[in-house]
Amino acid sequence: MPLTHFDGKGDAHMVDVSDKAVTSRIATAEGHITMARETYDIIAEGRAKKGDVLSVARLAGIMGAKKTPDIIPLCHPLPVTKVAVNLTLDPDLPGVNITATVKTTGQTGVEMEALTAVSTAALTVYDMAKAVDKAMEIGGIRVTLKDGGKSGRYEA
Amino acid sequence: MPLTHFDGKGDAHMVDVSDKAVTSRIATAEGHITMARETYDIIAEGRAKKGDVLSVARLAGIMGAKKTPDIIPLCHPLPVTKVAVNLTLDPDLPGVNITATVKTTGQTGVEMEALTAVSTAALTVYDMAKAVDKAMEIGGIRVTLKDGGKSGRYEA
Amino acid sequence: MPLTHFDGKGDAHMVDVSDKAVTSRIATAEGHITMARETYDIIAEGRAKKGDVLSVARLAGIMGAKKTPDIIPLCHPLPVTKVAVNLTLDPDLPGVNITATVKTTGQTGVEMEALTAVSTAALTVYDMAKAVDKAMEIGGIRVTLKDGGKSGRYEA
Amino acid sequence: MPLTHFDGKGDAHMVDVSDKAVTSRIATAEGHITMARETYDIIAEGRAKKGDVLSVARLAGIMGAKKTPDIIPLCHPLPVTKVAVNLTLDPDLPGVNITATVKTTGQTGVEMEALTAVSTAALTVYDMAKAVDKAMEIGGIRVTLKDGGKSGRYEA
Amino acid sequence: MPLTHFDGKGDAHMVDVSDKAVTSRIATAEGHITMARETYDIIAEGRAKKGDVLSVARLAGIMGAKKTPDIIPLCHPLPVTKVAVNLTLDPDLPGVNITATVKTTGQTGVEMEALTAVSTAALTVYDMAKAVDKAMEIGGIRVTLKDGGKSGRYEA
Amino acid sequence: MPLTHFDGKGDAHMVDVSDKAVTSRIATAEGHITMARETYDIIAEGRAKKGDVLSVARLAGIMGAKKTPDIIPLCHPLPVTKVAVNLTLDPDLPGVNITATVKTTGQTGVEMEALTAVSTAALTVYDMAKAVDKAMEIGGIRVTLKDGGKSGRYEA
Repeated sequence: MPLTHFDGKGDAHMVDVSDKAVTSRIATAEGHITMARETYDIIAEGRAKKGDVLSVARLAGIMGAKKTPDIIPLCHPLPVTKVAVNLTLDPDLPGVNITATVKTTGQTGVEMEALTAVSTAALTVYDMAKAVDKAMEIGGIRVTLKDGGKSGRYEA
Repeated sequence: MPLTHFDGKGDAHMVDVSDKAVTSRIATAEGHITMARETYDIIAEGRAKKGDVLSVARLAGIMGAKKTPDIIPLCHPLPVTKVAVNLTLDPDLPGVNITATVKTTGQTGVEMEALTAVSTAALTVYDMAKAVDKAMEIGGIRVTLKDGGKSGRYEA
Repeated sequence: MPLTHFDGKGDAHMVDVSDKAVTSRIATAEGHITMARETYDIIAEGRAKKGDVLSVARLAGIMGAKKTPDIIPLCHPLPVTKVAVNLTLDPDLPGVNITATVKTTGQTGVEMEALTAVSTAALTVYDMAKAVDKAMEIGGIRVTLKDGGKSGRYEA
Repeated sequence: MPLTHFDGKGDAHMVDVSDKAVTSRIATAEGHITMARETYDIIAEGRAKKGDVLSVARLAGIMGAKKTPDIIPLCHPLPVTKVAVNLTLDPDLPGVNITATVKTTGQTGVEMEALTAVSTAALTVYDMAKAVDKAMEIGGIRVTLKDGGKSGRYEA
Repeated sequence: MPLTHFDGKGDAHMVDVSDKAVTSRIATAEGHITMARETYDIIAEGRAKKGDVLSVARLAGIMGAKKTPDIIPLCHPLPVTKVAVNLTLDPDLPGVNITATVKTTGQTGVEMEALTAVSTAALTVYDMAKAVDKAMEIGGIRVTLKDGGKSGRYEA
Repeated sequence: MPLTHFDGKGDAHMVDVSDKAVTSRIATAEGHITMARETYDIIAEGRAKKGDVLSVARLAGIMGAKKTPDIIPLCHPLPVTKVAVNLTLDPDLPGVNITATVKTTGQTGVEMEALTAVSTAALTVYDMAKAVDKAMEIGGIRVTLKDGGKSGRYEA
């Protein structure tokens, strides 16, 4: 089974979606960043008081979703109609859980936008806390929902 | 211990690095994407023949490193002097291991550039193989080396 | 009355416009930049002869309108179908009056595009004349017309 | 007195700063956005509780500073070393006062970066509150401090 | 006959396409880069073995097509639905022939996207081979096919 | 002789320039766009009167130079210190001759910036005149001068 991003000669191209229907599409992705307990406490306390890491990362995630076709070489540009990014402090990791939901009305799906939003938000958490903890790790980035296209509903 | 990306009032700002020395800096980050065995085989076979997913992802990673200050809100713009991204097929995952090394001569480190390169390369692998496997997962993204600044050498 | 750019928890998000109708939309914004009489004369003379500040600023404004979703964090990307920016020398300010009109066929309005065009054009005038006048001031930036959406016609 | 952004033929060009000294430079700009009393109260209340318009606008301003050479046609690209944007609720306007301070170590000044940061932050406030108030007005955008270059200290 | 990119006063503007029909549109452009025989041999050998200049240039061309409205001042932003770039080694030049095909469903044509893709791919070949040959020359960039709009089919 | 943009395994990378000296560098490139006599007359007349195609293209070229590291995958980001683009009407082509000169103080050359400026200016001329002439052709894009680096002066 060949990958759709390569043509018959094996050369990369942007898949032709010209004949796909314009439909309402949605995708959700998730991921997390784990950190030292001490780092977690600093972020959690900042949220309660001042210096809210999660707000900055949320905004970075939303803007990251819009940059997706600029970042992912063969991704189609799409006018996204909704982006929501949630970051939740999870004391059990310890760290932050991230989910992103993206919607569009278009000819192709938005799972890359959702994944890019999660990834960008996680990188931003790392950036803001790296002065106190270089060993943070980003993981668990995957698609949990995709719906609205020809291939039907996908749920993980 | 406060986070450096917030000022005394708790407001986010871009840290002042004006008085830091201009030094040679290097950072390395790693990560991976895991996938179904069947997906792995398709990518591995394409590499041998035609339709090379890893080449596209490598280039995306290199370009991603250059976009870092545009993607990460409080990150300083830096003239990177070297970016190398390596993607290796790992049958044990099964999946792809990714490392990125970035260098600069500047006033602040390049670990965000290395992390962004790894993250972008992983997202690009997902994009190119998602037609055959939506359940791929990106993880293990972390800094393994940072050197050249005031805070000294960090190795994971 | 809550602001639409925040969800129930108070977290910023990009408003969901998925269910809004695709309609023809238009917005006009205005603003001005005031300057010393001597600076005004230099710009006015350049317009007549050579070194046309207003042409450069006009083009900057048009390109600025296209960059709006990249600049304004929660703004939806939109395929604008028309951008016109007018800069008029006003000896009474003395300075330059700026208006911008933007159109689209889409699910949300273009007043941010019009405002960004005016703002970018004004900043560009400042940039080109700052060597002779650092005290120029940009003001009066507001929406004067918005039409085509559910909320009806707004005229200032 | 000719404008430096035009050559002898009157054609626009990016000024040659190759022979200028690399020095520490700083610039501060200010501006404001005025609004209806009711709008002011909604933003002020959100700040106290949830839905913080000023935090989103501050981040937009910081990122806007980094985009300056992409937005202003003849502006030199510069590796900014610090960006701080402050937004203060002012019940007397009523509205929001904005200041931005930018630093670099380079061959040309950063007043355009400071102005762009203020302008972007103001536009973002408009975007977030426009659903309740279309008549907000942005003004008073000007440079208040510039120092570090050959032309000496400028203070307004 | 006036140029459509200027209004009645001679000022540049982005042409109003609001009332044009949304139709399927396609454009193809071509171009080439000529080089020394020795340079050609290095690229040809790399293609067979390792170090594939053409793959990197192809990807650059695809991404360049997406950047068109950001690069060409008065170009409308368009959600392209397909981009394919082909680079063929031509021993008779000696050099590389490049073609690009772009499709969209929109209100205006995509010939600028096709031309920008060809141009970007050619510049990338130059970049990758310039260490061995500074005298390469890019030429023959032109539109060979445009179809789908009101002005009918154009074929060169 | 291997190409420097590939490592020992044949994988593309951004060349390490960390150890190269920071020197003053300059590059000049040229190119042209040919067109029908009638098209030439329209542009020439617009230049004299109103609707100046060359001014818009000049500005696009300058901005294009700044976008070079974003457009050319393996190109190093550089703080350019001067960009000048000249467009001259040439009745003998008939068409427009374009030259671009770029300077920087950095660790690598600016010939890609000069070539990108020429290429972007030529594409912009095409865009603005395409409504009257689809058969215009861009060619002769090459480097005519490169100086300031280790490899010495190159003049074509």
